[in-house]
Amino acid sequence: MKPAPATLGELIAALGGDLFGAPETRIERIAPLDVADAASISFLANPKYQAQLASTAAACVIVAPAAADAARARGAAIVTPDPYRYFARLTQWWAGRVRPAAATGVHPSAVVAEDAVLGDGVLIGPQAVIESGARIGDGVQIGAGSFVGRNAQIGAGTRLAPRVVVSFDCQIGERCIVHSGAVIGADGFGFAPSPEGYVKIEQLGAVRIGNDVEIGANTCIDRGALGDTVLEDGVKLDNLIQIAHNVHIGRHTAIAGCTAIAGSTRIGAYCTIAGAANIVGHLTIADKVHVSACTLITRSISEPGLYTGVYPFEDNASWEKNAATLRRLHQLRDRVRTLEAAPHSNKTPAP
Amino acid sequence: MKPAPATLGELIAALGGDLFGAPETRIERIAPLDVADAASISFLANPKYQAQLASTAAACVIVAPAAADAARARGAAIVTPDPYRYFARLTQWWAGRVRPAAATGVHPSAVVAEDAVLGDGVLIGPQAVIESGARIGDGVQIGAGSFVGRNAQIGAGTRLAPRVVVSFDCQIGERCIVHSGAVIGADGFGFAPSPEGYVKIEQLGAVRIGNDVEIGANTCIDRGALGDTVLEDGVKLDNLIQIAHNVHIGRHTAIAGCTAIAGSTRIGAYCTIAGAANIVGHLTIADKVHVSACTLITRSISEPGLYTGVYPFEDNASWEKNAATLRRLHQLRDRVRTLEAAPHSNKTPAP
Amino acid sequence: MKPAPATLGELIAALGGDLFGAPETRIERIAPLDVADAASISFLANPKYQAQLASTAAACVIVAPAAADAARARGAAIVTPDPYRYFARLTQWWAGRVRPAAATGVHPSAVVAEDAVLGDGVLIGPQAVIESGARIGDGVQIGAGSFVGRNAQIGAGTRLAPRVVVSFDCQIGERCIVHSGAVIGADGFGFAPSPEGYVKIEQLGAVRIGNDVEIGANTCIDRGALGDTVLEDGVKLDNLIQIAHNVHIGRHTAIAGCTAIAGSTRIGAYCTIAGAANIVGHLTIADKVHVSACTLITRSISEPGLYTGVYPFEDNASWEKNAATLRRLHQLRDRVRTLEAAPHSNKTPAP
Repeated sequence: MKPAPATLGELIAALGGDLFGAPETRIERIAPLDVADAASISFLANPKYQAQLASTAAACVIVAPAAADAARARGAAIVTPDPYRYFARLTQWWAGRVRPAAATGVHPSAVVAEDAVLGDGVLIGPQAVIESGARIGDGVQIGAGSFVGRNAQIGAGTRLAPRVVVSFDCQIGERCIVHSGAVIGADGFGFAPSPEGYVKIEQLGAVRIGNDVEIGANTCIDRGALGDTVLEDGVKLDNLIQIAHNVHIGRHTAIAGCTAIAGSTRIGAYCTIAGAANIVGHLTIADKVHVSACTLITRSISEPGLYTGVYPFEDNASWEKNAATLRRLHQLRDRVRTLEAAPHSNKTPAP
Repeated sequence: MKPAPATLGELIAALGGDLFGAPETRIERIAPLDVADAASISFLANPKYQAQLASTAAACVIVAPAAADAARARGAAIVTPDPYRYFARLTQWWAGRVRPAAATGVHPSAVVAEDAVLGDGVLIGPQAVIESGARIGDGVQIGAGSFVGRNAQIGAGTRLAPRVVVSFDCQIGERCIVHSGAVIGADGFGFAPSPEGYVKIEQLGAVRIGNDVEIGANTCIDRGALGDTVLEDGVKLDNLIQIAHNVHIGRHTAIAGCTAIAGSTRIGAYCTIAGAANIVGHLTIADKVHVSACTLITRSISEPGLYTGVYPFEDNASWEKNAATLRRLHQLRDRVRTLEAAPHSNKTPAP
Repeated sequence: MKPAPATLGELIAALGGDLFGAPETRIERIAPLDVADAASISFLANPKYQAQLASTAAACVIVAPAAADAARARGAAIVTPDPYRYFARLTQWWAGRVRPAAATGVHPSAVVAEDAVLGDGVLIGPQAVIESGARIGDGVQIGAGSFVGRNAQIGAGTRLAPRVVVSFDCQIGERCIVHSGAVIGADGFGFAPSPEGYVKIEQLGAVRIGNDVEIGANTCIDRGALGDTVLEDGVKLDNLIQIAHNVHIGRHTAIAGCTAIAGSTRIGAYCTIAGAANIVGHLTIADKVHVSACTLITRSISEPGLYTGVYPFEDNASWEKNAATLRRLHQLRDRVRTLEAAPHSNKTPAP
């Protein structure tokens, strides 16, 4: 990130908040509290780091009202109800200053079908391919080498990074971001067994993605078998995620990297699913369910809450002893039952 | 999927089966029993859903002989020994009606080496690259931006979706489908440690893929170190799978998404490996082995059957208590052993 | 791999080692001991395979001094202190013989910005895109359809396979190899929650990769949020790995396929992380830590060693019984405690 000096006054003018300190203070970068220098603006989002306020060298710290006094005691402060959200908006404002504005126009090396419909202010990057009947909304950016298939639709303001694939008939809403290598609309994995091998089930549905969705690098979202695979508004997917055919993901659900959701599972709204988790097919997961990393969800969940299923890691020698015992755990339970049933035991066996 | 009206009579003429009902009945879509409307054809493949027969609005249901009476009691029916396979064939027939036939020819933006050999009726999409010595069989479709390296071979009737990579010397058989982002023939992960860091082991083998194989989006199949990595006929791989160097996968084995098979492991025929499973290197897995989702296979398996190793998920509080106990499981076993050995216990300790 | 006959004398002249046998012996391939024929050279790196020395048909075997007598008793031998490293160097020499030398020059279909800086002897493949301000070092090879973004830097001698993405401002060192589909510099996964949904945190950092790094197919390395994501010299990453924003990986650490490292985690030098392992965010992992396959690391590790957390797999019926008991493990512990506390028990409860 190159420095792009701004003053606190400019920053407040753009983003709001209550400034305590000199508006002409010059800021060259955004940095965490422990790394910040005298040209940095920093933020305190988690009260457990409040002790770092005393030692940070930051020129200015964004804080909540509860930390305002402590912050002002050490220097300039911006006081705002939600410092983390303010920080997020600050990064957006900053990016708009340090990054060149997107160009518009169709690069001469791109291949755009004659009957594709391009909105106003569109950028079609080098070697992108836009097939017949595709509709590209206003202000869309299609990165270098990306592919938009037959009759696909890309909503206004959406940005495809280089080398994205959006297959035929798929729809992406407005203001979405799709990162490089993502594949939207490959065939779902469906076959009927037969004595001569598997018979392919053609995947006749597509993918429908709402507005304000972000999709990570090399993530795959398969097209539906009969109906569509659906991501509602505001869904955020990290990298290398697998969304199988006919999955439905509710609005504002966020899923971290390397997770897989198997076919026809329906996930509620406002869920968070940590990295490398897996959810088997044909389940229904309620709203506001949170799944821990590396957990396999094997049955539907009807209550909000945090769910976990992870073998705790240990040094390998300890693991080997415990894992060997685990393999005979059912026998161990029987042995305890036998002890409990012994005549000289006056204890009631547990249920 | 756009409606593409067909009559039951046309459908039977194409696919066979015994029709009970009016051949002129018009079908506009294929749908599951619970979603079907009066213009839908549906199917009953799993007897546990037979109760849905009574309530479905489908115009016609594909059923096995055992369900023929129940199906006919409610409307039109197609009776066939294997309704799921019939459904699969129906999707293929339907796709052939609603999707445009593939074009043929070499797009002017594609880069095809002079000495590459192209069969009859080939499609080379925009910005595809075909390197020197590559051989592309009759009727092959190479998607936009796909890459076929030096001396690679693609068998007749195979289809590469956009943005597929097939590296030099690799071979793909006939009638295969390779989805976008798949990488066939990247280097296997091989290094010799040395005091100055790892020394690369050049991967001198390639990848050999049989006929009727399907490979999912962003799946990786590495080239062999000395010999080749091999997929036999009829293998089906889902998305985001990692097949390491020198793996050998037997015919008609199907592997679900996000699974990884480590180097030199040999997997039998007719296996099914569920999603996010992992198999370590240098193992031999028998035919007809089935591996559950998220299971790590750490030793060879010589008997057919279903194998599982998954920590059962729970609400997080329950998990924390059980996981903490699991970390001391070996001690718990010793405590049981102590109790069993106590003089007033007349029970023989379990083995 | 095509045969490329060489004599043992040529081989020794290029690679050193002590040859026992006729220098004019002709070698056509490199093969493992159990597959080698009379035109093969093989190697014995692991003493546990020494019994194969007696039965191999190899023309020559590369061995350590301890196995020299056994090897010489059966035919030609090359004696060297580290046979596996010698084998690695042999594969490099062999690849240099059987593979055509890389071409140089800019393919006419590539799109190279006017102000991009290209070193000497560079190859820019067909349909590659090099954006404004990018710097491509001497001898770099950019594969077909690869993308190098604005102001990115690629160090001398580095090779990008086809369809690699290196995003703006990212830096790759010298002599690196990046395999197809890898995405370097997509946005890290960062959002601030708000009542209206997530607010994107623009990722203002980049990715910095040292020298002699190898990055596998479809692996993703996200750009940092404020600072950079860093891979030090000699790091080796396999396929389909996820490296989140602001991760720091120490030199000569090797990570196998399908592993994910969450945000801001710092991994030491000379670590090995097996396949499908996961490390949660904001941890510090010491040098020389080894993580087993499929293990989730949930807290920092300060001591070198091997760490494991894997549910051992079993036939499904055994797993079901043990897993059901595991769900009540904490209760089982309480039952043991109750037995221990019984008045007629003269044993001291374990801690």
